[in-house]
Amino acid sequence: MNKDTGLRNRGRERGDVDDRRGAAEGFSNTKLENISKYSFDPKAAEKNIENMIGAVQIPLGFAGPVLINGEHAKGEFIVPMATTEGALVASVSRGMSVITASGGASVRIFRDAMTRAPVFRVNGISHAADAIDWISKNKKKMDAAVKGTTSHGKLISADAFPNGRSLFVRLSFETGDAMGMNMVTIASEAVCRLIEKETDAVLVSVSGNMCTDKKPAWINAIEGRGKTVVAEALISGGIVGTKLHASAESIVETNIRKNLIGSSMAGSMGHNAHAANMAAALYIATGQDPAQVVEASLSMTVCESIGDDLYISVRMPSVEVGTVGGGTKLPCQSEALSMIGCLGSGKAKKLAEIVAVTVLAGELSTLAAQASGQLGKAHKELGR
Amino acid sequence: MNKDTGLRNRGRERGDVDDRRGAAEGFSNTKLENISKYSFDPKAAEKNIENMIGAVQIPLGFAGPVLINGEHAKGEFIVPMATTEGALVASVSRGMSVITASGGASVRIFRDAMTRAPVFRVNGISHAADAIDWISKNKKKMDAAVKGTTSHGKLISADAFPNGRSLFVRLSFETGDAMGMNMVTIASEAVCRLIEKETDAVLVSVSGNMCTDKKPAWINAIEGRGKTVVAEALISGGIVGTKLHASAESIVETNIRKNLIGSSMAGSMGHNAHAANMAAALYIATGQDPAQVVEASLSMTVCESIGDDLYISVRMPSVEVGTVGGGTKLPCQSEALSMIGCLGSGKAKKLAEIVAVTVLAGELSTLAAQASGQLGKAHKELGR
Amino acid sequence: MNKDTGLRNRGRERGDVDDRRGAAEGFSNTKLENISKYSFDPKAAEKNIENMIGAVQIPLGFAGPVLINGEHAKGEFIVPMATTEGALVASVSRGMSVITASGGASVRIFRDAMTRAPVFRVNGISHAADAIDWISKNKKKMDAAVKGTTSHGKLISADAFPNGRSLFVRLSFETGDAMGMNMVTIASEAVCRLIEKETDAVLVSVSGNMCTDKKPAWINAIEGRGKTVVAEALISGGIVGTKLHASAESIVETNIRKNLIGSSMAGSMGHNAHAANMAAALYIATGQDPAQVVEASLSMTVCESIGDDLYISVRMPSVEVGTVGGGTKLPCQSEALSMIGCLGSGKAKKLAEIVAVTVLAGELSTLAAQASGQLGKAHKELGR
Amino acid sequence: MNKDTGLRNRGRERGDVDDRRGAAEGFSNTKLENISKYSFDPKAAEKNIENMIGAVQIPLGFAGPVLINGEHAKGEFIVPMATTEGALVASVSRGMSVITASGGASVRIFRDAMTRAPVFRVNGISHAADAIDWISKNKKKMDAAVKGTTSHGKLISADAFPNGRSLFVRLSFETGDAMGMNMVTIASEAVCRLIEKETDAVLVSVSGNMCTDKKPAWINAIEGRGKTVVAEALISGGIVGTKLHASAESIVETNIRKNLIGSSMAGSMGHNAHAANMAAALYIATGQDPAQVVEASLSMTVCESIGDDLYISVRMPSVEVGTVGGGTKLPCQSEALSMIGCLGSGKAKKLAEIVAVTVLAGELSTLAAQASGQLGKAHKELGR
Repeated sequence: MNKDTGLRNRGRERGDVDDRRGAAEGFSNTKLENISKYSFDPKAAEKNIENMIGAVQIPLGFAGPVLINGEHAKGEFIVPMATTEGALVASVSRGMSVITASGGASVRIFRDAMTRAPVFRVNGISHAADAIDWISKNKKKMDAAVKGTTSHGKLISADAFPNGRSLFVRLSFETGDAMGMNMVTIASEAVCRLIEKETDAVLVSVSGNMCTDKKPAWINAIEGRGKTVVAEALISGGIVGTKLHASAESIVETNIRKNLIGSSMAGSMGHNAHAANMAAALYIATGQDPAQVVEASLSMTVCESIGDDLYISVRMPSVEVGTVGGGTKLPCQSEALSMIGCLGSGKAKKLAEIVAVTVLAGELSTLAAQASGQLGKAHKELGR
Repeated sequence: MNKDTGLRNRGRERGDVDDRRGAAEGFSNTKLENISKYSFDPKAAEKNIENMIGAVQIPLGFAGPVLINGEHAKGEFIVPMATTEGALVASVSRGMSVITASGGASVRIFRDAMTRAPVFRVNGISHAADAIDWISKNKKKMDAAVKGTTSHGKLISADAFPNGRSLFVRLSFETGDAMGMNMVTIASEAVCRLIEKETDAVLVSVSGNMCTDKKPAWINAIEGRGKTVVAEALISGGIVGTKLHASAESIVETNIRKNLIGSSMAGSMGHNAHAANMAAALYIATGQDPAQVVEASLSMTVCESIGDDLYISVRMPSVEVGTVGGGTKLPCQSEALSMIGCLGSGKAKKLAEIVAVTVLAGELSTLAAQASGQLGKAHKELGR
Repeated sequence: MNKDTGLRNRGRERGDVDDRRGAAEGFSNTKLENISKYSFDPKAAEKNIENMIGAVQIPLGFAGPVLINGEHAKGEFIVPMATTEGALVASVSRGMSVITASGGASVRIFRDAMTRAPVFRVNGISHAADAIDWISKNKKKMDAAVKGTTSHGKLISADAFPNGRSLFVRLSFETGDAMGMNMVTIASEAVCRLIEKETDAVLVSVSGNMCTDKKPAWINAIEGRGKTVVAEALISGGIVGTKLHASAESIVETNIRKNLIGSSMAGSMGHNAHAANMAAALYIATGQDPAQVVEASLSMTVCESIGDDLYISVRMPSVEVGTVGGGTKLPCQSEALSMIGCLGSGKAKKLAEIVAVTVLAGELSTLAAQASGQLGKAHKELGR
Repeated sequence: MNKDTGLRNRGRERGDVDDRRGAAEGFSNTKLENISKYSFDPKAAEKNIENMIGAVQIPLGFAGPVLINGEHAKGEFIVPMATTEGALVASVSRGMSVITASGGASVRIFRDAMTRAPVFRVNGISHAADAIDWISKNKKKMDAAVKGTTSHGKLISADAFPNGRSLFVRLSFETGDAMGMNMVTIASEAVCRLIEKETDAVLVSVSGNMCTDKKPAWINAIEGRGKTVVAEALISGGIVGTKLHASAESIVETNIRKNLIGSSMAGSMGHNAHAANMAAALYIATGQDPAQVVEASLSMTVCESIGDDLYISVRMPSVEVGTVGGGTKLPCQSEALSMIGCLGSGKAKKLAEIVAVTVLAGELSTLAAQASGQLGKAHKELGR
């Protein structure tokens, strides 16, 4: 087997994967035995990866059951989590147990739109004003351009942000049950060609970073991207004491000093304990884009005492998930989606609700652990 | 098999995993066949997960080879990437090919410290001032407390941030080749107990969010967390034209309007195209914490024309990686680390350098694609 | 004269002012001779200040003339600036001279709305959803409530942001030629009472800080507050050389490294050199609210080379100015407004355009000075 | 009198001012009668302004008395405030009355350093590393360069931030009783020339915006600029009820929902009600730089219930004030400084403490007003 030949092999059959992996082993002088042990046909992943040499196995556990009172997710769920961080699944499970014992979590989606924001070069502000004028008056023409590229996506709005010789246009779309980044990128390109033709603005990049994809950005925290979801639970004082070994008051104090004050002093966009942990584990398990954990981290956790009880909520302005497309079709990921009844069409909002409740459970458990001084101990016993 | 019994099984043998998975299948009325096909002994993952029912397989490819001229990473590397986003590996490979043809990427680590920032309750600013005074004068006592918990970690500094009745203390540590979060959490708890005893400040949470872990925060972007790494490459004008189908000038313009102006208008902490993508794929492949992709997204990409050539650099203020501990010991992940010669002690800085160069390659390729209008096309052909 | 009596005097006649000032002199053992030399009837300021003891004199100069090609400001203007910072007026004048020699500055207002964002307490997300539903369906009722409080203000929109048991509603208003904060506060209170009555949400504060007034906030930088204005000029290469002792290229480089990269690395919302300086001097001269210089500082300056010429623009998302109400009626301030033809009704947009061009001139001059290494020198010669 | 001649007059005698004002009147066809009525010799302002045509009179009142228990400010003060915003002085006075009745405010300065951050062009990261190495090893040479420019300023530290071909160096200085911007700019230029000579880095701008002056920036909020001050007061429950017509609990709730949650949702750097108002009024009265109200706005207000009592604190990370230099020498401004015993050497820290307590009083009063629903009412009665 020729090392170079193997590395250059672009084939997508199992034999090609073997050939490439062999070449990679040769190049790096490493045996890739476990990486070779994947259970799916590489053809099934041909739209998910190039240069495939095998797969990485991420341990999968479940948290729950948790009772969810959502608009789309209703009933008890066990939630698949793929992680290598010891104590995470146990912690979330503890939070879910507490939530379920308290009557479950409520959750609601307040907004749903995927965005892409091209940037154009214009001659100056007069040209920008003309282009904005055209955009504001020709929604129908842009709708038609979108329709030429997708049957699922639909343009909601086009917001313009002029800045000297740069003109940003933030396009918002409905994307059905797909997370939708590729759909909206392709649709946006069609809209861009139309704008270029009609206004003489010159497209510089179909993504001008006011989208904002996979970077933490206030525009997403404020206006939302993907689904804006809020989840909440009311935990009785008795349960806080017996199951969380803390008081509502101590958890509220921890949340204020840590998530509200501390995050604000750090210049953070995330006012939470570890929302990214739960999002990452669930996103990886279910074939979501793990880089969009960035947006999941923009969440805010709030706790209040109501009498002796503890009210806890989490606001996630940017949950970008889908139940069709992307990594969702891969065999393991499909099975994980099936575990929560979220495989295929009509399930994206349900998945978003489950994401938010899983984050809520993790926040509750970790805040309680910190309030009662157990964080390091948990990691010492369960973690690495 | 009793459904409830299985869900409650806390065992860590393969049989326990099977029992739990069976119960999970029953609970969710789903067959978890691919999830069952993992190749490692569950005992190997017992510090990485609870409630394990199997594993999720993430397709693994490689990008490269890429020539790196680092202080720790030297020579040609093929870089493992676990992803389900079509076109990503191909794009990074293209960037690496261009970089290698141009003499390789340089990379340097400018800072290395892992942080944890407890928050204390004090009586007010006079009490805060007294506590700060004690902290500033008793580094040695705190060092001793740290030494009692770890042989690898070492306290570098303790910076205090008073705010009314809250006192935040940002502790910075050397952590050797571990990413080090658990190490510094446990060490910080020891420091906290000492501070409590000596100053009467009351610990509210060992993590007061000025750390800041897994949330985007300016304190990390400015002061760094983990490793602060900068990578760069100089691409000849000829190669930009023939291999990237663009000009240095057009890439520079794209970078300015998109990554500098667009990100700033969006209120973004990340001035890059998609650093999180590369970080996520490499972190998942090598057993890093995928939630720390959040910090990787705080990166800034800069492009300059030098004559006809293109200079490109990426600054990553917060690369939190390790080559021991965490998920690095798992079989697939160990193999992926071995592919780049980064398994085990003495390799964390090398890994950080490879992360930064991989991000650099991905930035270069995507900027060029956007500058030449190919983004949607690439996703259409290679992606979902 | 009894010290206490004088301090407690609440009268608004000149005699009361004298009495109070005398008491203040006694209390502080200071002679307030210059402070006593004000030229206006204190009754004229009775809605502007309490406990008046005199006035502070701020030196007033003018910058210009500058040629402006705006929609509202057309022709040559000399711009009043009240400042104690040596070199500022001279620097702005230099910029204006260059702009005028190059054919003047263009300027355009892209958006105009004053905001106030009350926060309500709700029972949870279901209650929040109901309240949002009511708000989205009852614009006319809210319009009527607004109309009961003001004849100039008009409600444009009401955007809701739910977060657990807090519900924020950002109300946007047209405010005619007033800056409008008081008008919209009073109108918002009427809207709040209506929302409380109809939805059972409980008003916690008429200002919930998503407004955001007098604090730097991304919501203003992104969505605008007051007037969103962009100004630009094209300076010929010859003029850049002879009058600014720099090249277009060097100014562009300075702007990129300083205003784009440096600001972004500092975690700044202001990507400019010193927009706040020009805004402060003009706001103080013309009776605007100087605390709203905060919002003026959210501006972005962009420079581009076009051949040998220099294109420069400044985007100010939040220019909050008025030509009626507030401090505009005071005698000196009225005269300063008259100098630029901006006194009274129908002039607020003209004033906003002049603000943006004045900032543009100051940016141009300072960037050029820094590009040619003259900053410290200028301050040494002209400054303190 | 020739219009053009007058506008071009650069003289600094009263006759020159008259000549210019006459020309300005002619140019703008306006009578500037009140502007002409200034009481000081224009020569006294020759380092404060160019093109002087007179002065603007800002109504001056006082708030207080307030009892301050600071390290530098001790005793009762009446605080001069120059403003045109009705209700502001009355509101601050109310807060001061409450604070004084409760035993006064405590206040402490935790940090004191003025910064300037030049940006250099380097060849790349290797060059950057060499330059950083030189900087880290040659503090004494830089100290000497500083000493050649100032007898009051002293270099504290030089922190380097490399980013591709840009190298930022944040220089921190002691500046004695001057606010110190000009002093540190001139000293920084000397340091820059030394760095250029020794490292071949090329100075692009003496201010690279990581300073950060007059722009809101997280680097200032986190690390401080000028003086970092925290003030606090404990208000008995009885006084909260009788004087503020509210309860501690309602004020705490208002502060959490508005200043902590609302500001965070708005992407604000200022977690306060209106710190900029108090800072602006006091800065204008005492000859400070009003553009630095921007940094004053980066403050955080925290309220806590302690039993029935109310604890309130304000953290101001960036109070940039001086009692020598700048506008402090002007006659009215000197008198205002004298009112609080802050004129001249040895008084800058005292002034900073008074600033923080004045902000504290304004925050307390406004939060209480909002908590009890009086905000619009106050403006209606006292304001415009």
